[in-house]
Amino acid sequence: MSIKSTDELLKAIESLPLFDHHCHGTLTEPLQRSEFEELISESSSPAAIGTTRFDSQVGFQVRGECAPVLGLAPFCSPQKYIAKRATMTPERVISKFLEAAGIETFGLETGHHADSITSPAELHQLTGKAVHEVIRLEKLAEEVAEKFRSQEGSEKVTAFLKELDATLHSKIENAIGVKSIAAYRVGLDFSPTRPTEEELSGAVTELLAQDGKIRLADSVIVRYLLWSAIDMAQVIQLHIGYGDDDVDLHRCNPLLLTELFRKSIHSGARFTLLHCYPFHREAGYLADVFPHVYFDVGLAINYTGARAYAVIAESLEVSPFGKILFSSDAFGLPELYYLGAKLFREGLTRVLSSFHEEANWPLEECYRVARMISYENAARLYEVD
Amino acid sequence: MSIKSTDELLKAIESLPLFDHHCHGTLTEPLQRSEFEELISESSSPAAIGTTRFDSQVGFQVRGECAPVLGLAPFCSPQKYIAKRATMTPERVISKFLEAAGIETFGLETGHHADSITSPAELHQLTGKAVHEVIRLEKLAEEVAEKFRSQEGSEKVTAFLKELDATLHSKIENAIGVKSIAAYRVGLDFSPTRPTEEELSGAVTELLAQDGKIRLADSVIVRYLLWSAIDMAQVIQLHIGYGDDDVDLHRCNPLLLTELFRKSIHSGARFTLLHCYPFHREAGYLADVFPHVYFDVGLAINYTGARAYAVIAESLEVSPFGKILFSSDAFGLPELYYLGAKLFREGLTRVLSSFHEEANWPLEECYRVARMISYENAARLYEVD
Amino acid sequence: MSIKSTDELLKAIESLPLFDHHCHGTLTEPLQRSEFEELISESSSPAAIGTTRFDSQVGFQVRGECAPVLGLAPFCSPQKYIAKRATMTPERVISKFLEAAGIETFGLETGHHADSITSPAELHQLTGKAVHEVIRLEKLAEEVAEKFRSQEGSEKVTAFLKELDATLHSKIENAIGVKSIAAYRVGLDFSPTRPTEEELSGAVTELLAQDGKIRLADSVIVRYLLWSAIDMAQVIQLHIGYGDDDVDLHRCNPLLLTELFRKSIHSGARFTLLHCYPFHREAGYLADVFPHVYFDVGLAINYTGARAYAVIAESLEVSPFGKILFSSDAFGLPELYYLGAKLFREGLTRVLSSFHEEANWPLEECYRVARMISYENAARLYEVD
Repeated sequence: MSIKSTDELLKAIESLPLFDHHCHGTLTEPLQRSEFEELISESSSPAAIGTTRFDSQVGFQVRGECAPVLGLAPFCSPQKYIAKRATMTPERVISKFLEAAGIETFGLETGHHADSITSPAELHQLTGKAVHEVIRLEKLAEEVAEKFRSQEGSEKVTAFLKELDATLHSKIENAIGVKSIAAYRVGLDFSPTRPTEEELSGAVTELLAQDGKIRLADSVIVRYLLWSAIDMAQVIQLHIGYGDDDVDLHRCNPLLLTELFRKSIHSGARFTLLHCYPFHREAGYLADVFPHVYFDVGLAINYTGARAYAVIAESLEVSPFGKILFSSDAFGLPELYYLGAKLFREGLTRVLSSFHEEANWPLEECYRVARMISYENAARLYEVD
Repeated sequence: MSIKSTDELLKAIESLPLFDHHCHGTLTEPLQRSEFEELISESSSPAAIGTTRFDSQVGFQVRGECAPVLGLAPFCSPQKYIAKRATMTPERVISKFLEAAGIETFGLETGHHADSITSPAELHQLTGKAVHEVIRLEKLAEEVAEKFRSQEGSEKVTAFLKELDATLHSKIENAIGVKSIAAYRVGLDFSPTRPTEEELSGAVTELLAQDGKIRLADSVIVRYLLWSAIDMAQVIQLHIGYGDDDVDLHRCNPLLLTELFRKSIHSGARFTLLHCYPFHREAGYLADVFPHVYFDVGLAINYTGARAYAVIAESLEVSPFGKILFSSDAFGLPELYYLGAKLFREGLTRVLSSFHEEANWPLEECYRVARMISYENAARLYEVD
Repeated sequence: MSIKSTDELLKAIESLPLFDHHCHGTLTEPLQRSEFEELISESSSPAAIGTTRFDSQVGFQVRGECAPVLGLAPFCSPQKYIAKRATMTPERVISKFLEAAGIETFGLETGHHADSITSPAELHQLTGKAVHEVIRLEKLAEEVAEKFRSQEGSEKVTAFLKELDATLHSKIENAIGVKSIAAYRVGLDFSPTRPTEEELSGAVTELLAQDGKIRLADSVIVRYLLWSAIDMAQVIQLHIGYGDDDVDLHRCNPLLLTELFRKSIHSGARFTLLHCYPFHREAGYLADVFPHVYFDVGLAINYTGARAYAVIAESLEVSPFGKILFSSDAFGLPELYYLGAKLFREGLTRVLSSFHEEANWPLEECYRVARMISYENAARLYEVD
C-alpha cells in the first residue's frame, strides 16, 4: 500500500484490523442512567454531589463519538443518549459498536464478573470475530479453593495444589495466556522469588480456612501462581497502574517487578504490562531492557479521551516499537471497545503524522509501525494467526 | 452566551470571575531586588553564583507580562522592573495587579508569615472582593501550645487538647476550611488511623516540653488535627508535591493518602490537593475514584510559566471536570495573583480550544467546563455564594 | 547577533558550540550489525525474537539522520547502513560524525570499558577539540583495591584508604570532576551521612577480601567516595534515572538524594544529575531549590528521538535556566554524539520557538537561554574557558 499524505495515513490506520489483547465481556441487559454512569468510571462510589460522570473525558467521548453511532447528534445530552439507547435491544447496541470498532481478534479476560457479561463464545457469536480466552489466575485459584474448603484432613493442601495445577494446565489449552491482578490483591512490591513449600503450605491452609466467599489476597499464593505460569512459559498479563479505588496506586509501579523480570528472563514466559498510566514511561523502559516484557496503554486511552494522543506519544518514547500492544480494556459497555479503538487509531495517527512532519519519518514507515502496534506484535506474541 | 470561535472563547474565559481557593496575603512593604528574587523562587538559598532568579519561567513571566501592567515595555530588564516598581506605593502595585487578575473570591490561608502579609480583612479592603479565611491546622496548634507550655501539672495535656478543640471550633465559624502542611512537617506516609489516647498524650507532652519556639513536627498530633477536621466535616486543603526545599518531595505523593481517603469517605469531609506537581496525574486519579477528593495545579502554573498549559492539560486527563479547582497560591507578591490568573485563563483556553479542534468539543461545552474549574466547583465545594 | 525569525533562531542554535559535559569514548573497531544493534539499546539482552533494535526511536534516527552523513538516502535499510559503514575506516566514521556534531568541549567519563574506547587524548587527537576527563569514583576505588587485596596484615585498610585518597587527589588535578554510579551499585536510597570509621573499616576489609575481580557495591564505601569528593569541593556527576537493566529504576529517583543535598549545601561541591528520565521534572525541582544542583536530559534525548523535544520541554519547567546542561552520554558509537547534538539543537529550538510564539519571549532571549544551556552553564560550572 502506497501512502502519500497524512490523510491517507489516517484512512489506512482507520481500516487496520486490531488485536485487542486485553478486554472483558459486555453486558447484555438494558441499563439505567445510574448503571451506565457507574460503567464509565473507575470509582466504586457515586459521583460527587453536583457532578455527573458524563462531565469527564470518557463522558464527553460517549456524547461526542458514540451518539452518532446510535443516530444521534454529536454531544447530545446524556438524557437523550440514555433514552435512545434504551429503545434498542442490547444486542443491537453491541452489534452497532462492535462493527464500528474494527477489532478482528479479542483476548478476553474472563475472571471479572463472568456471570453478568458475555463469555468468549457469546462474544464470538455476537461479532463473528476470533475471541481467545485469557485466564485470571487469582479467580481460578479461588474457584478451586471453594471445592476444597470443606474437605477434612491433612492432605487437603496437597490435593488443592494438585487440582489447581491440573485445572490451570487444562484451561490453558484453550487460552492464549493468563492474567494476574497481583497489583490489586497484594501490590507489586512482593518478593520476586518462588515461595518455599512451607510458605505455600501455610498460605493454602489459611486460604482454605477463610470464612465466607474465598478471596485470594496472599502474596505467597500469588507468587506461586505467577511462577507456575512462568514455568509453563505463558504470556502473563499484569494489571499495572491506574484502576479502581481498590488499588494502592503507589504500589502498582511496574518498576517494582524489575527483579521478577530478571529472574524469569530465560524462562520462555513473556509479560504484558496492562494500562500502566501514569507509569507508562516506566513501562516503556522495561519493554526496552527486558526482551520478554511488552506493554499497552489501554484503559488510559478511553479515560483520557481528548488527551489519549498525549499518552500514546509518551508510550512511543523509549520502548522498541515491536513491544507495544493495543487493548481497549473494555468492560460492560460495548461503547468502550469502540471508543478504545477509535481513540487509539486517531491518537496513533496523530503521533505518527507528527513524527513524519517533524522527524521526517517516511509515511510507509509510520504505517508499518502502526501495523505492528495494532495487530502484528500481539499476533507474534500470542502465536495467533 | 453564544461562543462562535476560539477567539471568543478566550475573551469569555478572560472575563470569567475566578475563585482562588488557596492563596496567601501579599507584602505591603517596598522591596529590594534581592527580596523580590527570593519571592519568585521556592528555594531558601540565594541563586547560584552567575545566575539570577529572573532567568526562570516565573522570572520571564514577570518581565513579559507584569512589566506592561506597570507601564513598562514587555521584557524590560529586571533592573528597570524593580526600579519602576520602587517608584510606586505598595498599595498601588497591589491594586494594579489585583484589578488585572479578575479574582472575585479568595480563600486566604493565614498560617504562613501572617505578621508580614495582608490579613483577610486587609485584602478585602484593598480589593473590595470576598475574602474567606482558611485556617492552618499546624499553626493553630502551635499557637495554642505556646499558651500551655509553661503550665505546671498533669492536666496540661487535657487542658491543651480542650483549648485546641475550642479554638478550632471557634475559628472555623468564620472560615471556609482548614489547611494542613503535613507534607512539610512529617511527610505524607503517616498512618491513616486516628491516634490512640496514649499516643496523643505522649506526643502532646513532648510538644509542650519543647525548647524555644514550638514547632509541630509530630505525626501523631498532625493525625489528630486531620481527624478533628474530618469529624467536623470540613474542607481540608493539603499541601501536595512541589514546594520549597524544606519538603521531601518523594514523600509528598498524594497516593500515600489513599488509605486516609478510604477511611474518611463517608465522613462528610472533603479534601483538596494543592499544587500537586509533578504528581498531578496521580491527583487526577484520586479525584476520579474518591468522591470527596478535589485538586488544583496552582503554584505549578506560576512556576512553569510558558509551560503552564502543559500542566493544565495533564490535569484534565482522568479527573472528572467537576473536581478540578483554580488557585494561584500567591504569597507576598501581588504579581503572583495576576500571573496565576492570567496563565490559568490562557492555558485553560488553549487546552479547551485544542479539545474543540481535535476532539470536536462544542465551544459551549468548553466554556461550561471553564466556568466549572474557574469558579463553580469551588463555590459548590466551599458552599460560598 | 540579531535574530528576526524562528528560522534564524534555528540557524543560530545550529551553529552554537556545545559543551558535552558527560560522554564516553567511542569504539575504533569495525562493527558487525549485531554489535551495532547492541550499542543502540540500553538492554544487555538481544532484541526479542521477531524484532530489531532498529525499530525504535534511536534506530529510526540512525536511518533518518545518520545515513545522509555517510552519503546514503535518509531511511535506507539497516542492512545498507551497516554495509556502507563497513566500507569506511572507523576513524573516517568518527571524523564524519564528530565534525557534524559541533561539540567544542567534551567532559569524558573514563570509567566504563576504558580499554576498548577512545581515551581523552585519543578523542582530542581525532577531533582537535578540548577533551576534559571526568573520573569515575567506583572504578578508581576498584583499581586501587586490586593493588591491596593480596597484601597481608592489619594495616592494609589504612594503606588502601591513604592510597585511594592520594590517587583521587592526583587524578583530579587533570580532571574537571568526578562521576558516581551509586545508582547502579547501591541505589540512591543510601544514608546521606558520612560513614563512621568503624563502618568504613569493615566495608574496606570486605572489599579487599572479595574473590575474583573486585566489584564495589557497598554503600559505605560509595558514601565515603561521595563525601571525599564533597570535601574536595568537586563537581560530582551522578547517574540518575534511565539506564540499562542493571539498574533498579525505582531506586534511581533523584529526590532520594534530597537530604544529601541539604547536608552538602555549603561545601562548595556541586552536583550534576545526569539523564534523569523519567524523573526529569523531579530533577528540575532539585535544581530550583538547591543552588549546587544542576541537571541534563542527555541519553534520554537520543533514546526518545522524535519525542526528544517533549523531554526537553519538560526540563524547562521549574528549573532556573542557568542550571540546565547539555550532554550526549554517547558511548561507543560516534553516531550518538551527532544525534545527541542534533536532537538537542532541534528540540531546544522547537521548544524556545514555541515560547516565542505562545508566551511572547523575544527571540534574543530565546537565543540567550540556548547559549546558557548549550555551553555557558557548563563552562561556568566546570570553570573551563
